[in-house]
Amino acid sequence: MGKLARAAELLRAADRIVILSHSSPDGDTLGSAAALCRALKKLGKAARCECADPVGPKYAYLFEGLHAEPFAPDFVVSVDVADLKLLGSLAERYRGRIDLAIDHHGSHAPFARETYVDAKAAATAEIIFELTGLLGLEVDPATASALYTGISTDTGCFRYSNVTPRTHRMAASLMERGARAEEIDRAMFETKSRARLEMERTVLEHLRFFCGGRGASIHISRADIARAGAQEDDLEGLASLPRQVEGVLAGITLREKEDGSWKASLRTTPPVDAARICRKFGGGGHACAAGCVLRAPLEEAERRLAAAVEEVLREA
Amino acid sequence: MGKLARAAELLRAADRIVILSHSSPDGDTLGSAAALCRALKKLGKAARCECADPVGPKYAYLFEGLHAEPFAPDFVVSVDVADLKLLGSLAERYRGRIDLAIDHHGSHAPFARETYVDAKAAATAEIIFELTGLLGLEVDPATASALYTGISTDTGCFRYSNVTPRTHRMAASLMERGARAEEIDRAMFETKSRARLEMERTVLEHLRFFCGGRGASIHISRADIARAGAQEDDLEGLASLPRQVEGVLAGITLREKEDGSWKASLRTTPPVDAARICRKFGGGGHACAAGCVLRAPLEEAERRLAAAVEEVLREA
Repeated sequence: MGKLARAAELLRAADRIVILSHSSPDGDTLGSAAALCRALKKLGKAARCECADPVGPKYAYLFEGLHAEPFAPDFVVSVDVADLKLLGSLAERYRGRIDLAIDHHGSHAPFARETYVDAKAAATAEIIFELTGLLGLEVDPATASALYTGISTDTGCFRYSNVTPRTHRMAASLMERGARAEEIDRAMFETKSRARLEMERTVLEHLRFFCGGRGASIHISRADIARAGAQEDDLEGLASLPRQVEGVLAGITLREKEDGSWKASLRTTPPVDAARICRKFGGGGHACAAGCVLRAPLEEAERRLAAAVEEVLREA
Repeated sequence: MGKLARAAELLRAADRIVILSHSSPDGDTLGSAAALCRALKKLGKAARCECADPVGPKYAYLFEGLHAEPFAPDFVVSVDVADLKLLGSLAERYRGRIDLAIDHHGSHAPFARETYVDAKAAATAEIIFELTGLLGLEVDPATASALYTGISTDTGCFRYSNVTPRTHRMAASLMERGARAEEIDRAMFETKSRARLEMERTVLEHLRFFCGGRGASIHISRADIARAGAQEDDLEGLASLPRQVEGVLAGITLREKEDGSWKASLRTTPPVDAARICRKFGGGGHACAAGCVLRAPLEEAERRLAAAVEEVLREA
């Protein structure tokens, strides 16, 4: 009996289940929660989803027909939550009360009574799909669409390095079970708000190259955001833009914080180690994506980071 | 014995095979050709790929180690070529001499002695993958990467409506056979030339809305292209930009032709019928993507198209 079977057993034994998603919710934490909720209801249980932040209109379809029933839970499960803190304002309410955490983050910091982490899963939705099988359930079209949403959004539509053959096979099965793949992908990846377009235009205007085109940087000021009327959602993924330019090995994005300091996001291609560069400025992260904060005017922050990148590029 | 088995039989009987790709080659016609070439060589045959246009540096890896041997072919096969005209400057040389056409375009206009079309295949590469099985071959990593390239590029990385469960299952199998999926997708979808970025910035500056935001238009002048130093490759897909804006049901892209007229590309969301609108201007196409040419100054061309779109939107 695998560990996921243990999770299935715990859920089967429960009657009134609350499912927690992380704050600033994305397609995987919401898709996984919605799918698990539908599965548990099929087993005749009371179930509802909770999230500290409101669910954007883009994801409303996930919860269609899922009415939030009022009940006192006898079981609490979190999905795609790597750290208690990521529950946001729900962290305090549920601290010490979470029975099971299901997650795919290798960096998962345990906070639940029992934990199931599969870091090889491209999305928590992959795990939930497996779980429905262990619960002996047939996946219906709404559940299939929710699981597909989790997988597709967490892989950049099958583009990231976390994609495995299992990911594609699950997508195939979910399409056969009625997942509206094309419609979902169009909404998630092919639709841009006007504010998003305005932000893209603005950062392209700021794009600067250094180190003979092997480095590139952009910045996002608070004034730019206000002018475009952009929300947090509209900024998603902008930091990957400079690294996408042909020939660029290190892309810097500087975003102005409320106190006027600049939060830097560094995206690199091997052998340039982003975490190593960011550690020089008191930050950290992964080899290909890292961050740090610089308390300096924009030009100085940009110059200091570019110099650090240049040093590493010269060695590489 | 299915019809594809007949294609396999024909190829098995041949000794010196030329494989034709269409002009302005894309990832599917090149990936399919490279994969078929590698397969035929494994069967001990002489094989080479031909295309009217040079293969861009982006696709060079497909042909690594495949030396173009000089030989007089006893068999000519085209892959992903929907019409003889699409062979470009090779059309005259091979007219009446093509033994087999393998294609996935429903609109295929037969020109070869024998034809195998599977319009349900998302890419011709799907058919070639099946064909290697019928030829009794194990797919090696280079061939897997070539086939994956065809599938991934022709589906916008698993995003378009042509994707089926089979598409995902094949991607899974190709990854297991050594396809460098992540690297390929990064090169195809995550890398942009500087000229491309400059073109994106320029068209975003031209973006105009009409009909209360349900219509949007951009234009690409010859001067814009020259200023950005953009090649044809750098313009690929720009026409889908206006329709991507939230709320837009009809997106117009006007591109200046050499004679000063404007080629319009219309992209729409149901129920707006792009072909119907373009037919008013002597053009045509599909319900969601159509085109026409307007001999008028930019402002007038834009106004006339917007008026035609507005009329249809008012009915819808």
